[in-house]
Amino acid sequence: MSDTERHRAKMAHRKSVQDAEVAAKTIEKGLLIVHTGAGKGKSTAAFGLLLRMLGHGRRCGVVQFIKGAWNTGERTALSAFGTQLEWHTLGEGFTWETQDRARDIAACRHAWDVARGLLAREDVALVILDEINIALRYDYLPLDDVLSALAARPAMQHVIATGRNAKPDLIAAADLVTEMTAVKHHFAGGVRAQAGIEF
Amino acid sequence: MSDTERHRAKMAHRKSVQDAEVAAKTIEKGLLIVHTGAGKGKSTAAFGLLLRMLGHGRRCGVVQFIKGAWNTGERTALSAFGTQLEWHTLGEGFTWETQDRARDIAACRHAWDVARGLLAREDVALVILDEINIALRYDYLPLDDVLSALAARPAMQHVIATGRNAKPDLIAAADLVTEMTAVKHHFAGGVRAQAGIEF
Repeated sequence: MSDTERHRAKMAHRKSVQDAEVAAKTIEKGLLIVHTGAGKGKSTAAFGLLLRMLGHGRRCGVVQFIKGAWNTGERTALSAFGTQLEWHTLGEGFTWETQDRARDIAACRHAWDVARGLLAREDVALVILDEINIALRYDYLPLDDVLSALAARPAMQHVIATGRNAKPDLIAAADLVTEMTAVKHHFAGGVRAQAGIEF
Repeated sequence: MSDTERHRAKMAHRKSVQDAEVAAKTIEKGLLIVHTGAGKGKSTAAFGLLLRMLGHGRRCGVVQFIKGAWNTGERTALSAFGTQLEWHTLGEGFTWETQDRARDIAACRHAWDVARGLLAREDVALVILDEINIALRYDYLPLDDVLSALAARPAMQHVIATGRNAKPDLIAAADLVTEMTAVKHHFAGGVRAQAGIEF
């Protein structure tokens, strides 16, 4: 048997295993997805999925719990999708920017009211709860309320919750959890935040 | 001192530390970014950054080394950006789909020629080398050629290389490396690939 034939035989076997695995997966359901960890890419990967869902012509909603009204590249780019996307930036900035815990809590509660509205809608295919893990970690939102609303949402609705330090109960409820781990970061080398990368 | 005052004082201190850190970072440069690991979100986070960069009005290029011409949601969505984005899907599918090593290598070499063209252009702000780590891992591309072209690219050009098992020399050359780690995956629960999530 030549190397070429050996490669073909090995890959043919792998394909049959792969095909059988794909065929065994038959369930369709709305996924609860969590992006956590101290590395970059948690919100960015959520917005990549948002782009994908918008490309399929589905309606989507984003609620940002922490970040204030920053003028980010993705927001400008996504304005092309008009009413297909509802985008709510309802945070007041990081806690060290506001320096006012009561105001932070009020902002998170308002953001959660808006999020709950989206989680009740059958016509919304994907809801992104951006940085909700931070709001939960500081007890700005009651975890039980969030878990109940997630459990009661439409069966086919996908949800992505982002932010470091995801609560163990949220991870337990999730279908897909990815941890973004920082292996190496350019800020350590004195590089500043740049357009198109950090904002 | 009340709790409110204590919170404010603590956050005011944190803000001064944060501001000093930001002020110390003055370098602007094109970043070499690597998204690796066995978890999800490597390509998706790259496409999230692409969206951000497109929103800033900059020109971008994508070369897909492995995946074939799939009709993905993000491709449909990104067609809105016209000539601001060059998208090259040049893979032939996974190796177990083609079952032909020589054809896989030829496809990767062609994709690399196209990528090299993008890496030489001053007007391209971001280049995504999607799944190039897989091509490098199977030695479908010479690592030294890739590292040389990356080192010689325009100083302000950002590059994102995706795919599991990134080569140690590529990680050493990178400015920002994130490992996506799978904590929990819905395929294990029998859920199939769904529109807007996997494609």
